[in-house]
Order: sequence, then structure tokens, then C-alpha cells
Amino acid sequence: MDNHTSERAVTLKDLARQLGIHPSTVSRVLHSDPVVARGAASESTARRVRELAAELGYSPDPQATSLRTRRTHLLGVVVPRLSDLVLAIMYEGVEQEAAGIGYSAFVTNSRDDAGEQRRKVELMLARRVDGLIIGDSHLDGDLLPELHRRAIPFVLMNRRHPGFPSATCDDVRGGELVAEHLWAQGHRKVAVIAGEPYASTAVDRTSGFSERWRALGGSMPEEAIVWSRFDTQGGREAAEKILASGVDPTALFAVNDFAAIGAMGALRSRGMTAGQDCAVVGFNDTSLAAELPIPLSSVRSPMAEIGRVAVRLLTRVLRGETVEPVLLQPTLQVRESSA
Amino acid sequence: MDNHTSERAVTLKDLARQLGIHPSTVSRVLHSDPVVARGAASESTARRVRELAAELGYSPDPQATSLRTRRTHLLGVVVPRLSDLVLAIMYEGVEQEAAGIGYSAFVTNSRDDAGEQRRKVELMLARRVDGLIIGDSHLDGDLLPELHRRAIPFVLMNRRHPGFPSATCDDVRGGELVAEHLWAQGHRKVAVIAGEPYASTAVDRTSGFSERWRALGGSMPEEAIVWSRFDTQGGREAAEKILASGVDPTALFAVNDFAAIGAMGALRSRGMTAGQDCAVVGFNDTSLAAELPIPLSSVRSPMAEIGRVAVRLLTRVLRGETVEPVLLQPTLQVRESSA
Repeated sequence: MDNHTSERAVTLKDLARQLGIHPSTVSRVLHSDPVVARGAASESTARRVRELAAELGYSPDPQATSLRTRRTHLLGVVVPRLSDLVLAIMYEGVEQEAAGIGYSAFVTNSRDDAGEQRRKVELMLARRVDGLIIGDSHLDGDLLPELHRRAIPFVLMNRRHPGFPSATCDDVRGGELVAEHLWAQGHRKVAVIAGEPYASTAVDRTSGFSERWRALGGSMPEEAIVWSRFDTQGGREAAEKILASGVDPTALFAVNDFAAIGAMGALRSRGMTAGQDCAVVGFNDTSLAAELPIPLSSVRSPMAEIGRVAVRLLTRVLRGETVEPVLLQPTLQVRESSA
Repeated sequence: MDNHTSERAVTLKDLARQLGIHPSTVSRVLHSDPVVARGAASESTARRVRELAAELGYSPDPQATSLRTRRTHLLGVVVPRLSDLVLAIMYEGVEQEAAGIGYSAFVTNSRDDAGEQRRKVELMLARRVDGLIIGDSHLDGDLLPELHRRAIPFVLMNRRHPGFPSATCDDVRGGELVAEHLWAQGHRKVAVIAGEPYASTAVDRTSGFSERWRALGGSMPEEAIVWSRFDTQGGREAAEKILASGVDPTALFAVNDFAAIGAMGALRSRGMTAGQDCAVVGFNDTSLAAELPIPLSSVRSPMAEIGRVAVRLLTRVLRGETVEPVLLQPTLQVRESSA
């Protein structure tokens, strides 16, 4: 991204200009023995010099530098929306892991719109990112095959797509855990707030649940599975649709905690109480779940770790390695909403 | 950021290489009459060409281009953490407004750590952003005066700092609205979960509340104001401290919805119900507040608009204008938790 890092060796003058201090100060901080260096600048200035030098790949050996700096050390991350807490936490994992290996991450929202996804990806490429982490892949999209044809290094995060490297929760297993829990609690009439059908998270959590449910001997009418937005409002609307249908469930599985909170709101509007009149189970175990006035049972997925793993996979892709999808294991946290 | 936009005119070849298509295709899309252009490429390819050309400031007139492209058209945004829904929504406003004027935004987390704030700002500057939007300013920090001395264009978002341009909610007024509501409801023993004392949001909401409370004739012992983290766990800990003290409040004002949800959890652990045994009011009116099993009263702040205004202020700063702080007006949403 930065012209110096991508085109030629970074000089002391570059560092000095960008820090707004004198080149001789930069030189003494970077090239003197510790005692002189301490005398050269305040500890905070010295730290800024060292950090910027590391960031821009400054080296007293220009040959080594030019070898290092062919890369921008920038990773582009595309997510549906950062206001989805799950993606924000995954991105914190990405940023943390990237910083640890001298990369910086650049994140943008696609609002799950196909045209916007494409536009944001081209924008990242125009910014010369070394590779992409895609958190909003659509099962029905044509963007990933095209990126693959163009030999653009990328990995998927949060949502998987057959044939491409990804770091995700084992969402099928997560759905199975919920089916086993609700079955063991004696529920026989259940419904699923299933999320968006283009997202592997929604499809895998829903199919994991319904296949395990049938394997246990349960049955579910078609109208017991309602696709929905992932947010609170989407969950409320889906729950209202289920409650208005003939399903009459004793338990609701929402594939996202925010959708589950929306479902609790819908129950409340009908004078029903989550956990008493109808069990509710969410997914991701966000920090809210345990603190709600009616604590929410939820499948815990290792969100920050998924982000960290995505960065590690991308560094392997950048080295030209073939990378298999990684599935991180979920656990079920049972609370009052389904106890 | 991109070498072409910052150093020299973008050529058809640049566009073609970055899009992985032939220069003649790019030329026909950009320079032919509509009919020929339609024949030259698929609509999706043509759109990608036009969007990238706009993004990189391509122009058939290199003189015009070189004038335009002294800027990177990149804005750097620093926030405490994107997993704070409030900042994520403000950032969506920033990204939306920036895109509308041909800028792209670049966001990073500082975790409210002074060293990390400085490091992230230098990283943004190393990436050649045209200006900064700072969402994590500390009242006691020395970073802003230094950026001002270095003549780096910036505006504050979310948190204000005396003497610098900012786009924030009128947090003092927000605190006053809560004091007036709780007083009118007949509460006389109240406590405040005040947030972090280095954040103007926390200080202004708390002082707005307590000064208005006193003006109404109320009193509050010192131990009725507890500084805390802004998240769910921070709110729970602060509420437990208040409930363990002699204050015995009939109402709690938390300066953040997530802290309020944590306070609801603390009440629950003591067998108390929010809204019945103790009123709870939050701040920001995030989408969750209305859907909680006990709907949360909250001060609505125009979060996305704050982000959009921050971008508009920064464009004025970049034009060399002097910009006054902008305070956006909050409204109180009363719900079951304090009705």
C-alpha cells in the first residue's frame, strides 16, 4: 500500500518525515547502542520510531529490504456487516493474528449484496492487498470461482464454500448438539429460525439439527423451518410466522443469538415466556447470552479463534501451499431458556 | 494507498492488469459509445471496469488525473473495538458516507490502550490516509495535541475532546433526559453505572444525569456512581458493587446498553427483576433493547448519523476549513425496564 514499502527501500528520511522528527533522531534510535539510543529520544518517540521502522520494513540493508517489501503486508477482509457482533469478534481475531506477523488488516462491509461484494473485493485488490479473507461467501455466488481463476490468494472465514480453503465453526455439529439437547429435554414439536439460505452457517446449522432430529426419531413439518435474516428483527419476524402457523412448537432453535433474542421478543408479545412456555436456543454464545433477563442457551463457537486461524491459513496460501478447510468444534451452553 | 493513485496517472493497462482482462476491453468499455461498449464485455465486467476506473481516478486526461490523485482517497478510522456494536454502527455510517464521495475507509481497533492508539494511528499514517477519524479519544491523552502539532487532518467521532472538531451525541442532554424520567417516576434513590472515566461519553452522560438530578432536588451519595467497563461484564460488576453498598437504589442508569444488560443479570442473581424491583435505563438504544425479555428503556443516539457527520466534517477539515464540534440530539425510549 505504502509506496515505499511496495516500490523501494524505506530510508531514515522516510521514517523521519512520517514521524515528524529529525532523521538524526531516527538514526540514533535505530543504529546506536542502547545507552546512546536512550539519550536520543523519549521512550515514547523511540517506540514510535521502532514500530514504524518495523511496519514499513526499514532495514539498514537495502537488498534485504527490497526482498521483503515486494509485499504490502496488507490483508483485505470482507464481512457482511461489522454490526454483526459475530463478524466483529472474528475480525478482532484476524487483526490480532495479522499484527503478530507484521501484517495489517483492512475490513469492509458488503451487506451481503452480491454487487457490493464484488465491488468491495475489487476495491481491496486496487489497494494491493496481499490476500483476501472473505467472511460473507454465498453458496450460490460466482465470485469465488472467478477469484480462483484470477489466481488471487484468499481464504474463507465464518462461511465455508465447497472446494475452497476456509476457517469455520463445525456448524453441522452445532446443529446436532441442539437437536440432542432438545430431544433429551422431551421436546417433540420444534421449529428452526434458519437464517439466510445462501449462508453455509444457516444451511449447515439447520441441516445438522433436522437430520439429527430425524435420526432420533423426531419429525418436523416443512413450515417448521423458516429462513430469516440473522438479526433481532429477522428472528422476531420468523418466530411470529412460526407461531402463526399450525406448528405450535415447544422449542425454537435460532441459528444466531440475535435472532434468538428477537424470537424471545415475539414470544413475549404473545404473552409467552421463553424457557417456560417455549424453549429457545441460540447460536454463537455471544457475551449477551448469559446476561439476558432470561439467560439464553446457545452453541458456543470459537469466534476469535476462527479469525486467527483464517490468517494462519492465508499465510500458507500465500506461500503457495494447498490448504484444507478447518472446522473448529462448538460446545452447547445450556441455560434457563431451555433448561 | 495505491501507488498509481498517489504517484502518477492510472493507465488502461493498470486497470486491465488489476481486473485480469485485456486492455482493449477496458478501452472499449470506457471510451466507446454505449452500443459498442455493451458489445465489448458482459454487464458485470463493464461495471467492474467502470467502478475500478472511478476508484483509481482513471481519466483520459492525465493532467486532470494528476491533479486529482495527489490524494489517496483513504480515511483511517480508529475505534476502541468493533465488537462494541455502537462503534460498528458508527463505522457503517462512515463507510457509507465515504463511499458516496469516492473515499474508502480503513478501520482498526485500539482496545482503548494508549500505546495501541498511537501505534494504530502511525500505522494509518504510514498507509498514507488523507485524514483520520478518531473514535477512541481519551480526555487525559496527549495524542490529539501532538497530531494537531503535526498538522495531521483529523476529526473525533463518538467521544469529544475540548478544542478539537468532533461528531458526537449530546451526551450531557442524554443524561439529563434519564434524570428527568426517573425523577418523574418517583425514584429518589438512584445509582449510575458510569463507564470509563477517560471517555467523554461516560463523563458527559454521568454529569448530565447527576447535575440534573441535583437540580431537581435529588441527592446521590458518592458510592452511587461507579465507573466501569462499557461491556456486559463491566456492567454486571458495577451493579454488584452498587447492590453490595449501602445505596439500595430503586433505579440504575447505565451509560451503555450492554452495561445495562449486565446490570439486569446482576439483579437477577439477587432474585430481583429489572423493572419491578429496580428500574434500569441504558444508553444508545441498540436494536437489542426493545427485544429483550424485559424491554430496556434507553437513550437513543443517532449512531450511524454520527459516523456520516464525522466524514462530512473531515472533508471540510481537508479543505482547510475551521470546524466546530457537532452535537446530535438524543431521545429517550421508555420501556418496561423503567415504566
